[in-house]
Amino acid sequence: MAHTIAVLPGDGIGPEVMDQALRVLDSVKEKFSLEVSATTHLVGGAAIDDSGTPLPADTLAACEASDAILFGSVGGPKWENLPPDIQPERGALLPLRKHFGLFANLRPGVCLPQLIDASPVKNELISEGFNVLCVRELTGGIYFGTPKGREEREGEEAAIDTMVYRRSEIERIAHVAFKAAQGRDKRLTSVDKANVLAVSVLWREVIEEVAKQYPDVTLDHLYVDNAAMQLIRRAPDFDVIVTGNLFGDILSDEMAMISGSLGMLPSASLAEIDEKGLSFGMYEPSGGSAPDIAGQGIANPVAQILSLSMLLRYSLGAVEAADAIDAAVAKTIEDGFRTGDIYSKSEGETLANTKEITDAIL
Amino acid sequence: MAHTIAVLPGDGIGPEVMDQALRVLDSVKEKFSLEVSATTHLVGGAAIDDSGTPLPADTLAACEASDAILFGSVGGPKWENLPPDIQPERGALLPLRKHFGLFANLRPGVCLPQLIDASPVKNELISEGFNVLCVRELTGGIYFGTPKGREEREGEEAAIDTMVYRRSEIERIAHVAFKAAQGRDKRLTSVDKANVLAVSVLWREVIEEVAKQYPDVTLDHLYVDNAAMQLIRRAPDFDVIVTGNLFGDILSDEMAMISGSLGMLPSASLAEIDEKGLSFGMYEPSGGSAPDIAGQGIANPVAQILSLSMLLRYSLGAVEAADAIDAAVAKTIEDGFRTGDIYSKSEGETLANTKEITDAIL
Ligand SMILES: CC(C)[C@H](C(=O)O)[C@@H](O)C(=O)O
Ligand SMILES: CC(C)[C@H](C(=O)O)[C@@H](O)C(=O)O
Repeated sequence: MAHTIAVLPGDGIGPEVMDQALRVLDSVKEKFSLEVSATTHLVGGAAIDDSGTPLPADTLAACEASDAILFGSVGGPKWENLPPDIQPERGALLPLRKHFGLFANLRPGVCLPQLIDASPVKNELISEGFNVLCVRELTGGIYFGTPKGREEREGEEAAIDTMVYRRSEIERIAHVAFKAAQGRDKRLTSVDKANVLAVSVLWREVIEEVAKQYPDVTLDHLYVDNAAMQLIRRAPDFDVIVTGNLFGDILSDEMAMISGSLGMLPSASLAEIDEKGLSFGMYEPSGGSAPDIAGQGIANPVAQILSLSMLLRYSLGAVEAADAIDAAVAKTIEDGFRTGDIYSKSEGETLANTKEITDAIL
Repeated sequence: MAHTIAVLPGDGIGPEVMDQALRVLDSVKEKFSLEVSATTHLVGGAAIDDSGTPLPADTLAACEASDAILFGSVGGPKWENLPPDIQPERGALLPLRKHFGLFANLRPGVCLPQLIDASPVKNELISEGFNVLCVRELTGGIYFGTPKGREEREGEEAAIDTMVYRRSEIERIAHVAFKAAQGRDKRLTSVDKANVLAVSVLWREVIEEVAKQYPDVTLDHLYVDNAAMQLIRRAPDFDVIVTGNLFGDILSDEMAMISGSLGMLPSASLAEIDEKGLSFGMYEPSGGSAPDIAGQGIANPVAQILSLSMLLRYSLGAVEAADAIDAAVAKTIEDGFRTGDIYSKSEGETLANTKEITDAIL
């Protein structure tokens, strides 16, 4: 079956790590006889420079004509002072999520046992590493709720945002999270602020209801302030976390930082599953465009390569190819190859640049 | 001048650490000839057990008749399954904050150089310890904004909360934060989500405006997701942080966890400053009621004792007494006294229980 993917390298280290991901794509295409054609398009700051907008119409059209989007990263100091709406990150990501209904954001927070030195957390708290999956609702909540904007309150200027969730929105992300937990250690932690937010009370109610369909999964609830603490102290105790858009934004980034290997972490933003069990999706590294090291050929390409693997798995159904990439990455780390961000100068480690670590993976 | 304070020990370790704080109060009253009378009242779970409500009318009346509230901690498994509204934490804290207009929550996130082993963060990232002050707006934002509740959206059940800030609310917390920064290292970080929230765009605008009155303070802005990451990686780089109610809830707890010494951290929730330069305020430990160790006499009383010190400073203007308490606590830690939560078994440390460490402070 022939597939098309839209490749959006973006800014900063985006293009250079994307180049390496495309080398990996070529390799699995050959090895597993996949028919995948990739077309490359401008997004983010690169697109602003070219046409004044972070998400040009032809880029969007190309995404529409594809089975999935492989996204690099966007943003950088050059575009930082633009109004939020047309900044590279916000101006590209939010419209893409909304347009394609990418409601389910899956962000693994993984710290491999070999990489605990790179984590900011004390080694004894994460001695075996950890593997948490954060499932974040991505098209609802306070990001998109209305009313939103300026208005007068008590006779003076005020601004408001509306956090809103409908029952069905909570249900569908709950199913994604419970199913993910079933394929892992069968433990789900739902994070909310049900002691303060009406939305969280409904959230908790619906999660409890959906839980009845997944009796094999153990469910618990944490308030978001407590979750922000517990992740630091005991990341290894978590399996799958499910939460709304805003809390997911904060906690998944926090989790990524705790893992210490931002450059290793992919993410998937998925739409509803179709008849074939596949989703349209957008796949991107969890880290940013790292303008400080862009162009030097030293960035860690693993997050981009693992994003490709998620794309193959969830949008193309090329499970064997995805497994092969995951295994190759694991082996490369076991063999001691390290880009600068995860290099701890321990015995058995080899410092590698962007291309060299990809060579090892290939 | 005679002062009255309302003492609300609450649940869990609350009463036992409060006993020690009151010993310290007696000592400074004598030493500095202060006239302070303290009356004790039920709050939280203890009040629920007694009268069915976490904040009884006579407790509230006693607080109204006082210059400040010294609060212990509330909550525990016994009351966990009550509806949020009448749970000990929410049912006591939110009404007290709103009733007394306690809009400025000051939460020091301090890790003393001697206590870095107790932090979950790697020693090399915090080798000299750190001292961050989190200034959280406490009576606005999504906690209290209306509309709030259930409503129908797109033909189905939904729940909504409203995040709202008026210009004057942002201004007054900004002044508190800038003034605090002036008394410290003159650096202020404002945390928002201005790339997504209309409220944050106004927040940033007002903070920038107020900044003009404090040209000696260096201001920068961070998005909340980024702040959640940076605090872990580089807490020592921060001086004062100012943010809204919800983000402050999350970040100040995260910061407290990073410090590793929750049992050492006090907090102050202040109302507007009066003609004498003093505020009505509520003072409480940052940590919770720790029901797991309650009643054993081993809890760390320092957070409660330092809360008393903040009370003396901000509500009673007894600066000398407050300084004396702070110095005594610092000396006690230097001398190696440690309750279990901060004991790292290093040479020169003496394991102490709740009473013993207070003896040392006295
Ligand atoms: C750029 C921003 C709008 C975005 C978000 O808040 O969702 C980003 O932080 C993310 O998590 O992908
Ligand atoms: C108990 C709860 C309502 C409260 C809050 O969210 O403000 C608590 O977490 C706090 O930070 O004091």
